[in-house]
Amino acid sequence: MVRWEPGTAERLQRAALELFATRGYEQTTAAEIAQAVGLTERTFFRHFSDKREVLFQGQELLVQAFLDGIDAAPPEASPLEIVASALASAASFFPDERRPHSRTRQSVIDRNPALQEREQHKLTTLATTVADALRARGVDELAATLAAESGATVFGIAFTRWLREERSLADIAADVLAELLLLAEEAAQALRPTR
Amino acid sequence: MVRWEPGTAERLQRAALELFATRGYEQTTAAEIAQAVGLTERTFFRHFSDKREVLFQGQELLVQAFLDGIDAAPPEASPLEIVASALASAASFFPDERRPHSRTRQSVIDRNPALQEREQHKLTTLATTVADALRARGVDELAATLAAESGATVFGIAFTRWLREERSLADIAADVLAELLLLAEEAAQALRPTR
Repeated sequence: MVRWEPGTAERLQRAALELFATRGYEQTTAAEIAQAVGLTERTFFRHFSDKREVLFQGQELLVQAFLDGIDAAPPEASPLEIVASALASAASFFPDERRPHSRTRQSVIDRNPALQEREQHKLTTLATTVADALRARGVDELAATLAAESGATVFGIAFTRWLREERSLADIAADVLAELLLLAEEAAQALRPTR
Repeated sequence: MVRWEPGTAERLQRAALELFATRGYEQTTAAEIAQAVGLTERTFFRHFSDKREVLFQGQELLVQAFLDGIDAAPPEASPLEIVASALASAASFFPDERRPHSRTRQSVIDRNPALQEREQHKLTTLATTVADALRARGVDELAATLAAESGATVFGIAFTRWLREERSLADIAADVLAELLLLAEEAAQALRPTR
């Protein structure tokens, strides 16, 4: 059982990010992270299964934010409208105050191909969970998969832009989704007559 | 330098797939693959950098098929129309005769999370290359990324369906793209007035 130690995980996480960013992810050990905040390696492993986990913990909360947004969509909403609701809900998970932390985290991930693959895998898992939730609402298999994967695409692009810009993630995500809808309408006009 | 040995790579690949499928990927060594076709481990490593490579070699040919399709699109084509052309070109890379081989390969990948991550990463790399090619045609950054990632999504879904169905990959990919365009039009009507 993990003993309740307020703020310990957060302190470890902050110290880890600092060390990963300055010294490099590969070069930093769990023991060094713990030491930086006056704790033992054993305490570190009570909070995180490994040092990679420091960067990816909390994923289930983001997934839950997506699911809450899906639940909040009205019953008559079409698949991509439900996804729009999920994106709006997920955006609230990243308030602007979190941007500096997210930027540092991203700079660590961008320098390590294995972490990039892990991050990419996270988006894939997210898409699978969203597709399941859409199917549970009665959306058919193909539409659920397409809408969920498009949602993950929009979220990924919007998140990257949010790291560089100063606007809210909700605004950026809404704009990226709107651009996707525009592109689709443009192509639909040209492609349909030839089918 | 690799000495020219006609068919050796193909024989090794067939033997590897057979062993991966029957005995398990983890349980098969490069030496055993070579032995199965009367060759040495050294010969194996002249053709493949490791046993994983047996499953992923040829990726650059698929990427090239996408790029050829982009080149074939008329100058006035919109981003998703260019992607439609890329998908049609890529589909020709998987004629129906290849389905049994692709099914066996997929069954091996589906049983191994690390291979799944590698396969997912392949689609990500594909999307990046397609986005670069769209930008080189003058498509703006956001549209290029969205169209390329949507293309990778459509390809991934269509490929999975092609493994299970008997229709051609070109037909399935066209249908999946058409469904995406429909979903987008449906959502555009509902979302636009509220923006």
